[in-house]
Amino acid sequence: MNEKSFNIALCVNEVRAKRPLVHHLTNYVTVNDCANITLGIGGSPIMADDPREAADITGIASSLVINMGTLNERTVPSMILAGKAANEKGIPVIFDPVGAGASAYRNETAAQILDEVSISVLRGNISEIRYIAGLSASTKGVDAAEDDHTGLDETGQMAKRLAAKLDCTVAITGAVDVVSDGQRVICIENGHPMLSNLTGTGCMCSSLMGAYCGAAPGRILEAVTAALLSMGIAGEMAYEAAGSIGNGSFRVALLDTISHMSDQILAERGRFYEA
Amino acid sequence: MNEKSFNIALCVNEVRAKRPLVHHLTNYVTVNDCANITLGIGGSPIMADDPREAADITGIASSLVINMGTLNERTVPSMILAGKAANEKGIPVIFDPVGAGASAYRNETAAQILDEVSISVLRGNISEIRYIAGLSASTKGVDAAEDDHTGLDETGQMAKRLAAKLDCTVAITGAVDVVSDGQRVICIENGHPMLSNLTGTGCMCSSLMGAYCGAAPGRILEAVTAALLSMGIAGEMAYEAAGSIGNGSFRVALLDTISHMSDQILAERGRFYEA
Amino acid sequence: MNEKSFNIALCVNEVRAKRPLVHHLTNYVTVNDCANITLGIGGSPIMADDPREAADITGIASSLVINMGTLNERTVPSMILAGKAANEKGIPVIFDPVGAGASAYRNETAAQILDEVSISVLRGNISEIRYIAGLSASTKGVDAAEDDHTGLDETGQMAKRLAAKLDCTVAITGAVDVVSDGQRVICIENGHPMLSNLTGTGCMCSSLMGAYCGAAPGRILEAVTAALLSMGIAGEMAYEAAGSIGNGSFRVALLDTISHMSDQILAERGRFYEA
Repeated sequence: MNEKSFNIALCVNEVRAKRPLVHHLTNYVTVNDCANITLGIGGSPIMADDPREAADITGIASSLVINMGTLNERTVPSMILAGKAANEKGIPVIFDPVGAGASAYRNETAAQILDEVSISVLRGNISEIRYIAGLSASTKGVDAAEDDHTGLDETGQMAKRLAAKLDCTVAITGAVDVVSDGQRVICIENGHPMLSNLTGTGCMCSSLMGAYCGAAPGRILEAVTAALLSMGIAGEMAYEAAGSIGNGSFRVALLDTISHMSDQILAERGRFYEA
Repeated sequence: MNEKSFNIALCVNEVRAKRPLVHHLTNYVTVNDCANITLGIGGSPIMADDPREAADITGIASSLVINMGTLNERTVPSMILAGKAANEKGIPVIFDPVGAGASAYRNETAAQILDEVSISVLRGNISEIRYIAGLSASTKGVDAAEDDHTGLDETGQMAKRLAAKLDCTVAITGAVDVVSDGQRVICIENGHPMLSNLTGTGCMCSSLMGAYCGAAPGRILEAVTAALLSMGIAGEMAYEAAGSIGNGSFRVALLDTISHMSDQILAERGRFYEA
Repeated sequence: MNEKSFNIALCVNEVRAKRPLVHHLTNYVTVNDCANITLGIGGSPIMADDPREAADITGIASSLVINMGTLNERTVPSMILAGKAANEKGIPVIFDPVGAGASAYRNETAAQILDEVSISVLRGNISEIRYIAGLSASTKGVDAAEDDHTGLDETGQMAKRLAAKLDCTVAITGAVDVVSDGQRVICIENGHPMLSNLTGTGCMCSSLMGAYCGAAPGRILEAVTAALLSMGIAGEMAYEAAGSIGNGSFRVALLDTISHMSDQILAERGRFYEA
């Protein structure tokens, strides 16, 4: 890894210094954790999902997170309106296609968003991203299906092709996270299995991307990598703090760890490489 | 209690082995805790409440939880669509008539659901169940009214009659939980008063029933009893762990305890008898 | 401070004794914490935001909290219907104009509520209250803008004028909270900076006001002061308990501390004076 060309060391400092306002169009299941993790990393969260104000609020934001976790006839138009406003303003759009492949409505909504909004980042699990890529995908609701896990090489190539096709950065989260901007492929090894026993860790990861990209809109690949490192390291440190006590304590420890994430911790504990 | 005919000893293992997908049409107040308790007991939660996908998502689920905590014109039709899809697929439907008796809209919705959907389990507090049973009921919002508590014998007989009438299993939660499938009446003595100082413990209990019934759809009475034992024991153990610190710590400890619930703990700490 | 005319010493006891039902029309981001803090202080929360039942539920409540955190075409009419029902019944209405100034829709909604509903309490940060008062206000989403902080004297006079104009009690929360009923001005010095690193502490404060005002509807100024003291002291004690661990632990400790708030703690730790 060429450290000069891929310097993520200043990212947390930048978030905490700039305090980017991250507009979320997200689901009602994990929204509170998304708000608190955004605050924890140094951003400022706002959630406004009515078509009457979705574009207005995007107009004062530094980034936009569109999360498909719970959809309805009111919020889908808001996602499009906010997405277009973000494009017009030139701020990053993070798209989290939760449960893509699980229902016709989710599939149509994902297609509509990708058609009408220019996204900066696409983040999902392997099943969701395979579905978006037009590959065969199993699904088990909002979790990745076992069958969809293929080798890291194949996943990296898929991410690269999809990123080039969509002209964005693609992040596939899993035991090893894989990120590509269409040219480079980064693998992040941090993380902990407990993260899959807590609801919303994917959503929270997208919120972190909203905060990092809002602070560093000109360096999306670095920002996305820093978000994934933050989440992975926080998962490890939360497990070290809360042990295997359960997902109640793990959630608390995860938010605590993000509150104290620093460039030093990212540098010391981050395990990533360019594939 | 005839242990041969009423074996709940294997239930947690079955949930953790089968990882049932539990579709929730539930309220936005306690939904996050419902998701985390479902994960904690070994299930996989999904929430999709738009009529465009409620039936589709039910189609990939192992059970359906319909919780009336917050209702609106969009989610009530989704409850009916999802309920019918669940009936067609033959998966268990758990109905939690939160606040039945508190408004005309809740009353009409409860009647419509019971009319159009075949439910497997009805779970509520004494005021809600008395309302559903057509008995005089006081109500104080979503909590049971003092006046509605009658003796255990009377409650058991009421549960039995209502279960026979609705052709389902009826669970009335309170200081002592009472369950009946219309033939047998089971009383569960586990629990702790702190459970009523935390929002959503009733909702979480219904989610646990979704997970257990999703894993053991052919043994609903056992599954419902195991869910009630799990919640009651978790309440006791959470109090032992967090003491009387407050409802913040109690919530964390409750989720932690559910994450470690085991057949052994159920067998050792469960206090229930056939009335 | 004349203790005879301004006795807040019995307030927590009254909440715990009367267990007021607090109806919330609030946002989906922080609603769970609002419910748990209402339970923690001794009230009983209920959330019902459909126009079909908003007035019915208000009819069984002791107070109404209208929180603009997330608005939509369904909930705004519910806020008006519930507000009018509360006025008819004569129970206190607490209005929290979250994000007023941040979008045309929020501004119009705030104006409509103030036009059609008689409110008892208006609670917001300095930016929101300045917007409502028709003064120039900056805004950064749902947080107060730095530019809007003026001296305490000026803030107190503004609160007093606005309270007289709206015929209600105005509470401006910040490093020092300022309350006025149009005649007197009370300053509350309790609080901790960590409160702004946790989402929903403003909303939770409004919920506490709902509980206190529901228990003591004839003494709104005292009830609002007690709510602000409770939140401020809880912030201090939560920090003492959880230290700077992070916003996960701080949230838990905050709810725990509210669960144990007592008239004695309010008397011993409360730092407030009449300006």
